[in-house]
Amino acid sequence: MKSVPFLKPANLAKFIDRGIKKSGELLTPWDGSIVSGIGIVGIPLSKTSISHSGAHLAPETIRSMMHTLTTYQIGSGHDLWGESITDFGDVTMHVTDLAECQSRIKESAASLLKQCPHMTPVFLGGDHSISAGTIAAFSEAHGKVGIIQFDAHHDLRNLQDGGPSNGTPFRQLIENGFINGDQLVQIGIRDFANGKLYHDFASDNGVTVYTMDDVRKTGCITILEESVTRLRRSCDVLYVSLDMDVLDQAFAPGCPAIGPGGMNSDTLIEGMVWLAKHGNVKGLDIVEIDPTLDFRHMTSRLAAYILMQFYANYSKES
Amino acid sequence: MKSVPFLKPANLAKFIDRGIKKSGELLTPWDGSIVSGIGIVGIPLSKTSISHSGAHLAPETIRSMMHTLTTYQIGSGHDLWGESITDFGDVTMHVTDLAECQSRIKESAASLLKQCPHMTPVFLGGDHSISAGTIAAFSEAHGKVGIIQFDAHHDLRNLQDGGPSNGTPFRQLIENGFINGDQLVQIGIRDFANGKLYHDFASDNGVTVYTMDDVRKTGCITILEESVTRLRRSCDVLYVSLDMDVLDQAFAPGCPAIGPGGMNSDTLIEGMVWLAKHGNVKGLDIVEIDPTLDFRHMTSRLAAYILMQFYANYSKES
Amino acid sequence: MKSVPFLKPANLAKFIDRGIKKSGELLTPWDGSIVSGIGIVGIPLSKTSISHSGAHLAPETIRSMMHTLTTYQIGSGHDLWGESITDFGDVTMHVTDLAECQSRIKESAASLLKQCPHMTPVFLGGDHSISAGTIAAFSEAHGKVGIIQFDAHHDLRNLQDGGPSNGTPFRQLIENGFINGDQLVQIGIRDFANGKLYHDFASDNGVTVYTMDDVRKTGCITILEESVTRLRRSCDVLYVSLDMDVLDQAFAPGCPAIGPGGMNSDTLIEGMVWLAKHGNVKGLDIVEIDPTLDFRHMTSRLAAYILMQFYANYSKES
Amino acid sequence: MKSVPFLKPANLAKFIDRGIKKSGELLTPWDGSIVSGIGIVGIPLSKTSISHSGAHLAPETIRSMMHTLTTYQIGSGHDLWGESITDFGDVTMHVTDLAECQSRIKESAASLLKQCPHMTPVFLGGDHSISAGTIAAFSEAHGKVGIIQFDAHHDLRNLQDGGPSNGTPFRQLIENGFINGDQLVQIGIRDFANGKLYHDFASDNGVTVYTMDDVRKTGCITILEESVTRLRRSCDVLYVSLDMDVLDQAFAPGCPAIGPGGMNSDTLIEGMVWLAKHGNVKGLDIVEIDPTLDFRHMTSRLAAYILMQFYANYSKES
Amino acid sequence: MKSVPFLKPANLAKFIDRGIKKSGELLTPWDGSIVSGIGIVGIPLSKTSISHSGAHLAPETIRSMMHTLTTYQIGSGHDLWGESITDFGDVTMHVTDLAECQSRIKESAASLLKQCPHMTPVFLGGDHSISAGTIAAFSEAHGKVGIIQFDAHHDLRNLQDGGPSNGTPFRQLIENGFINGDQLVQIGIRDFANGKLYHDFASDNGVTVYTMDDVRKTGCITILEESVTRLRRSCDVLYVSLDMDVLDQAFAPGCPAIGPGGMNSDTLIEGMVWLAKHGNVKGLDIVEIDPTLDFRHMTSRLAAYILMQFYANYSKES
Amino acid sequence: MKSVPFLKPANLAKFIDRGIKKSGELLTPWDGSIVSGIGIVGIPLSKTSISHSGAHLAPETIRSMMHTLTTYQIGSGHDLWGESITDFGDVTMHVTDLAECQSRIKESAASLLKQCPHMTPVFLGGDHSISAGTIAAFSEAHGKVGIIQFDAHHDLRNLQDGGPSNGTPFRQLIENGFINGDQLVQIGIRDFANGKLYHDFASDNGVTVYTMDDVRKTGCITILEESVTRLRRSCDVLYVSLDMDVLDQAFAPGCPAIGPGGMNSDTLIEGMVWLAKHGNVKGLDIVEIDPTLDFRHMTSRLAAYILMQFYANYSKES
Ligand SMILES: [Ca+2]
Ligand SMILES: [Ca+2]
Ligand SMILES: [Ca+2]
Ligand SMILES: [Ca+2]
Ligand SMILES: [Ca+2]
Ligand SMILES: [Ca+2]
Ligand SMILES: [Ca+2]
Ligand SMILES: [Ca+2]
Ligand SMILES: [Ca+2]
Ligand SMILES: [Ca+2]
Ligand SMILES: [Ca+2]
Ligand SMILES: [Ca+2]
Repeated sequence: MKSVPFLKPANLAKFIDRGIKKSGELLTPWDGSIVSGIGIVGIPLSKTSISHSGAHLAPETIRSMMHTLTTYQIGSGHDLWGESITDFGDVTMHVTDLAECQSRIKESAASLLKQCPHMTPVFLGGDHSISAGTIAAFSEAHGKVGIIQFDAHHDLRNLQDGGPSNGTPFRQLIENGFINGDQLVQIGIRDFANGKLYHDFASDNGVTVYTMDDVRKTGCITILEESVTRLRRSCDVLYVSLDMDVLDQAFAPGCPAIGPGGMNSDTLIEGMVWLAKHGNVKGLDIVEIDPTLDFRHMTSRLAAYILMQFYANYSKES
Repeated sequence: MKSVPFLKPANLAKFIDRGIKKSGELLTPWDGSIVSGIGIVGIPLSKTSISHSGAHLAPETIRSMMHTLTTYQIGSGHDLWGESITDFGDVTMHVTDLAECQSRIKESAASLLKQCPHMTPVFLGGDHSISAGTIAAFSEAHGKVGIIQFDAHHDLRNLQDGGPSNGTPFRQLIENGFINGDQLVQIGIRDFANGKLYHDFASDNGVTVYTMDDVRKTGCITILEESVTRLRRSCDVLYVSLDMDVLDQAFAPGCPAIGPGGMNSDTLIEGMVWLAKHGNVKGLDIVEIDPTLDFRHMTSRLAAYILMQFYANYSKES
Repeated sequence: MKSVPFLKPANLAKFIDRGIKKSGELLTPWDGSIVSGIGIVGIPLSKTSISHSGAHLAPETIRSMMHTLTTYQIGSGHDLWGESITDFGDVTMHVTDLAECQSRIKESAASLLKQCPHMTPVFLGGDHSISAGTIAAFSEAHGKVGIIQFDAHHDLRNLQDGGPSNGTPFRQLIENGFINGDQLVQIGIRDFANGKLYHDFASDNGVTVYTMDDVRKTGCITILEESVTRLRRSCDVLYVSLDMDVLDQAFAPGCPAIGPGGMNSDTLIEGMVWLAKHGNVKGLDIVEIDPTLDFRHMTSRLAAYILMQFYANYSKES
Repeated sequence: MKSVPFLKPANLAKFIDRGIKKSGELLTPWDGSIVSGIGIVGIPLSKTSISHSGAHLAPETIRSMMHTLTTYQIGSGHDLWGESITDFGDVTMHVTDLAECQSRIKESAASLLKQCPHMTPVFLGGDHSISAGTIAAFSEAHGKVGIIQFDAHHDLRNLQDGGPSNGTPFRQLIENGFINGDQLVQIGIRDFANGKLYHDFASDNGVTVYTMDDVRKTGCITILEESVTRLRRSCDVLYVSLDMDVLDQAFAPGCPAIGPGGMNSDTLIEGMVWLAKHGNVKGLDIVEIDPTLDFRHMTSRLAAYILMQFYANYSKES
Repeated sequence: MKSVPFLKPANLAKFIDRGIKKSGELLTPWDGSIVSGIGIVGIPLSKTSISHSGAHLAPETIRSMMHTLTTYQIGSGHDLWGESITDFGDVTMHVTDLAECQSRIKESAASLLKQCPHMTPVFLGGDHSISAGTIAAFSEAHGKVGIIQFDAHHDLRNLQDGGPSNGTPFRQLIENGFINGDQLVQIGIRDFANGKLYHDFASDNGVTVYTMDDVRKTGCITILEESVTRLRRSCDVLYVSLDMDVLDQAFAPGCPAIGPGGMNSDTLIEGMVWLAKHGNVKGLDIVEIDPTLDFRHMTSRLAAYILMQFYANYSKES
Repeated sequence: MKSVPFLKPANLAKFIDRGIKKSGELLTPWDGSIVSGIGIVGIPLSKTSISHSGAHLAPETIRSMMHTLTTYQIGSGHDLWGESITDFGDVTMHVTDLAECQSRIKESAASLLKQCPHMTPVFLGGDHSISAGTIAAFSEAHGKVGIIQFDAHHDLRNLQDGGPSNGTPFRQLIENGFINGDQLVQIGIRDFANGKLYHDFASDNGVTVYTMDDVRKTGCITILEESVTRLRRSCDVLYVSLDMDVLDQAFAPGCPAIGPGGMNSDTLIEGMVWLAKHGNVKGLDIVEIDPTLDFRHMTSRLAAYILMQFYANYSKES
């Protein structure tokens, strides 16, 4: 076999420093074996969004931003160099049949949870509509699911007006009986970003709502402590649904629904680290990043950073 | 009359959710009746700016950003769904005669205040030069006006060098006898953003100046409490002039004169809510947003959000 | 009723020159009467696109670009000042049910053609999937339709793989029996932009295909003369489907599928003027402009210009 | 005096190649002596524009783009290395008094032409309003001025509606008696870019109008030959006013009023070279470039290139 | 082994249409066997550029743009579906030692040509400095090389001032004896883009220079016929070096050294097709695309299109 | 000598307000005399960066941003109007020989420090590789140098893999004996931004490392107090090396290596003011700003602001 000096396969002839490994390099395509620990699943769906959204491009972009992060968590001294993160790849979407897209999400997630029952999936959206499918599968696989939702919005809209969209996932879950309202905690809900009808729906169904005013007054960690304690009393398993638009527009410029009055990134990072350590979380999704609207992929960089902090701090038996 | 299914008038065939109304939909064109409460007036003037500015586009953009906000203020549980905000429209500017533009502003504002004496106008600039006209009209209509000016800059420049511009409105008001310096409180004045000559003019005329250092040390609410208390002792009515460049560049990337060392948006929002509740404010302007320079209209989004918080929290008899 | 000098309704306080009227001002919302002549219908659908597309925003943008054009066609001395162009508005799309979107298009177009049988509609897409519905309605209303399609692509893909998308409209029309292949003339088909399977489908079904090489060698006008003569022999009515990506990327930078090797804009304009004058065209669509990808709305400006040239040169009895 | 190796004054530490000199380096600030030949004058005025314009930034940008061009005109073998182009600098504008700006332009131009009567000025706008002043001064200095205007627009609007703007310079010149209409030739006037009222004004006043259709049919050089021959019969001196928006949007993406249907850049360059060689042109302006809207300063690059071709081919006694 | 429905490996869950294959899918990583026909080699070097350049990103971007092209060349009816294009990958560059980078290029190219002597490499730059190495290797492997260089610039600068850069490759080749000047034909050289000193060097060394004026007057194909005929008389093998900045800025907006007065893309494509068919070309490079400066990767799209036309029309025994 | 009213030299015809002087106007080109106090030196080198970087453009941009700042520091009442800041200009870089670039930096800095021994230089990078040269020169001129490095990264990579780059300056200084590790304090080091190997190198060599977690917990001023106290015990002189990427991406969007989890700008400004007042700092560099990636030059604005705060608060004998 011939060889040529200095040649590397296409697009791989990058500088290699012996002391640096990138988080992106930890990603290992699934080999079909039974995996435990954290695994990544991309769900490139955003045609279900109420407004124009390129969030289906986020799985690819977040993975790419993992290649800007190293494996070394200096705070703890923990180096992930030798570890691997299973990358299950992406769920293939249909071009024009959005109901088919949504049933594929549930079906794929269900199959995954069945085949790897001790695996903690991180679903990379896509828009927030994907959580209807992933959490439904979760509920079927793991029993009663407690949900911590970071979001500026309730996502409890009616299904008559526009069908199952990124405004309806938690309504679908409640109406279809996958969860009761009291299994859901919403953190970061914002003024002038929701309809009263849907706040009333939340109240009527026992959903716990913490507004941004609450976050500023009470503190995110305190809210999480309360919420996790309460949810763990009644639920079998915890799931975190992270809509990046919970953040203020200055910190997440690439969300479709940006706005002022939101959370800053340090607060969110701190909260996600706490959940990784103490939340006994069995599933996570990160949604609502549109890489075509972002500035220098800042929002995807932040998502990749949160994912790695979650991974590095993750403890299954807190 | 014929009709065709699914057809809606041009550009209106948007998704309608029965539970959501947008703040922008509250805007109701003035019908010529006597209005009280808050009303909107656009003043699309920015040729008067010292540097190149597209701030004349801000009234249109801020209104458009009101269509990204709903009517529901979740913190208070207050839904504005059934209310309406009178939109008086915009003052037509002359293409080349800027003195004519400025006299039109005063004339329009004066006529408006005369015809709707109990109305609280919110003037959407435009650059800061517009405040010379609106406050002059205010002074003639309401008597002695106390002014809270949020700004990185004094806006007290001399009139000889460049005529009446966005650097001179408060100088004009003082020199033309519409206000004395002690009726003016400036909050957020910044290092390396002003000339000593104009700071001296402020001191000599009794203008109260709070720098960003003061804001960081004393707190914005405390400063507002002091200022409102003092101004209300000596003045008949209060007016707030909000130059968005009081904010740090990270939070208001669309102001012509962006820079570091400024206020963060939460502090400004909190201050404006306090003023709406406790300030007995009878007039407001929001100026110095250039939508052509902004990122995803972040600064106009923030202006629209502040406007709605001001409206929702507004109390005429604090 | 009160009035205030210089005030105009929101966003309308623009400069008015007595000698200038904008083409956009000719647009008159439909009043439900029976209209003849050219009328505009927006079809804001692009979730049906194979690649990410914001083409649903084009109707709004093209209308807005009509406000950059005056009413005066200097070449002919023809001033459209006193005329009006009926704007039927836009067909409302469903958020998540794309089959419903497509049936709404056909249903609206059919109803329109029934109620205004002598009207020549100009459908503003949206992506090219909309032509399946508009031409189907056309066929039912007017009999055998001859189609001139300007396009870099055949749009004859199979329907099994992705359903009815912007890659399939003419396949749908043929398979559903609305047209035979010999009623279709494709102009501007490009190298490396199509699959052989679909070129074979074109050949097998008698579709006439002129590649860009043909256009460069034979000339667009000659091709149109041949095509119109032939189509008019066998068809009852002619329809032009203009996919803007027939143009080279230098002239239409805002199409989703830009590329080199395409037509220049002068050739297309000249062809469209010829068709308006001599084509006896009874329907037109303009599709595949994504305003979010464009540079200074160049592609929508060109679409608006073509629309006005078509309108001004339009002759019903050539 | 101390010295430090490798240090050069701020911003000048660029790479110097002994075989390359940049056209921008030929620019030599005026020393107050009597200059003949071509000289540059910047006129940074664009607040006079009907639409928002940053054309006041063009003199600086065009000069900067001259630094991307070398001094060597390879076609003719002519190297300008040893020559110098007098740069008279820029006319200082007033911030808010636009009438003052316009009288300064005329006054400066008049003084310049008086002090350097054999100099051929190239005025770099700014918007087209500047030509009213420069040509008025020209008329006073040189007698009857024949004008070749490249433009998509007549610029013959009435002065009542918006005062003297970039829509009115040639109207002002005619109404104020500086020229008669038959001294003016307009080339490149475009469909849907003008009002009939102003075309009628052109006709009524004997202005010669060549539309883009004329340019395409007759050819630019033929039109110039006819026009120059005719103008030189009746006029004392020729002046060329080059509004860059005569070009198609694909070639001049940085003009405020871009659009399709215009001239391509090769045609314009060829025309300007012909005029330099054969036109006996005594004055030139280049206007209507807004560097803030351009893509990679393409339009200013083209202006700089045309300026250098004009300079290199310039012959005073054709 | 487990499997999950709808899951595909990361970033590959795209829509697959059975009738469409992308040119990018033809790329097949080299397996170390002896290859003949056309093969791709990326050379991601641009730190050697005189001006700031991101051209090292072009190999990756051009490959990616090959995924926007199908395999079907409709003009000839030739479908490349079943073929494969060997992708040798990229030459790894050193971070800080640019001389090392340049010697790696020559060494890799030499090794490649030795191991696959009947292979026709297409080198994707990178900046034009890479051609010094590739052509030197070519000369050693194949004997006397005739070169057709499309370029706005001579690239014959002296080596003393800045070392071997993107301004010097053909100077290096001549001075180092790899070619004589009469083996080099330069097409598209432009006014105000070169220094006379280097044009003189070209003349003194017998380099044949066709300026853009020549191209416009004589025609590109005629020039190529003359040049190829002449070069083939004296040379053993032909190499084409395509600097994309030979194109006008309107057609290649992503080159570092854009400017007006250049070639249009149709002329270049036609020329490259002619060379593929009739040139007996044994090597090709495509250089000077900076994807970070481009608009929607237009210039890389054009490069990919030219590459595929070259491949599809390539004939080894013309 | 002739003169023309209103004419000013090219690009200088800006508005002058008698009460405003810009910080940029304080910059005075070095006249070769012995200077003390703060002086500016630009080092436009970024080809040494591991990733693509335009940081060589930062000296020019930062100076330009100094023209957006006035001379008046309102907090202290200190006006710098009458002062001047010596601008030594820029060190000329070689186009292709990066080792030569790096030795020029050291040589220029050494010569400068020798000729102006009481001058406090502020080196404007450029990438961080420049600090290897400036600090080496510093060490030779002033003895044992204590270094405060603000940075997200250690910059202690090995030199074998890529040579001396922006990842290695402090490694070079230690390995070449210019400093011992205990002379170096790193503040702001971030998770997932470094390799463990290099953190170990820091530990093994006695480098003091404060992570962002430390900054958040302990406070920047406390860290600086500790560090300065300790360094001043053992070192002769203090040098601050400010890599702007120590800041969070929301505050420094223009650094090549942006990311979340960083410092906010107020904290950094406060720290730099403290160092100016209390640090007895004798040298400073500001590096890693790429103006081509920034938004509205925010990061260069911040650098200019920090430079002016440092200058205004600077005390040589704290
Ligand atoms: Ca959500
Ligand atoms: Ca949300
Ligand atoms: Ca102000
Ligand atoms: Ca201000
Ligand atoms: Ca199509
Ligand atoms: Ca197409
Ligand atoms: Ca004009
Ligand atoms: Ca014009
Ligand atoms: Ca070259
Ligand atoms: Ca070149
Ligand atoms: Ca660093
Ligand atoms: Ca760093």
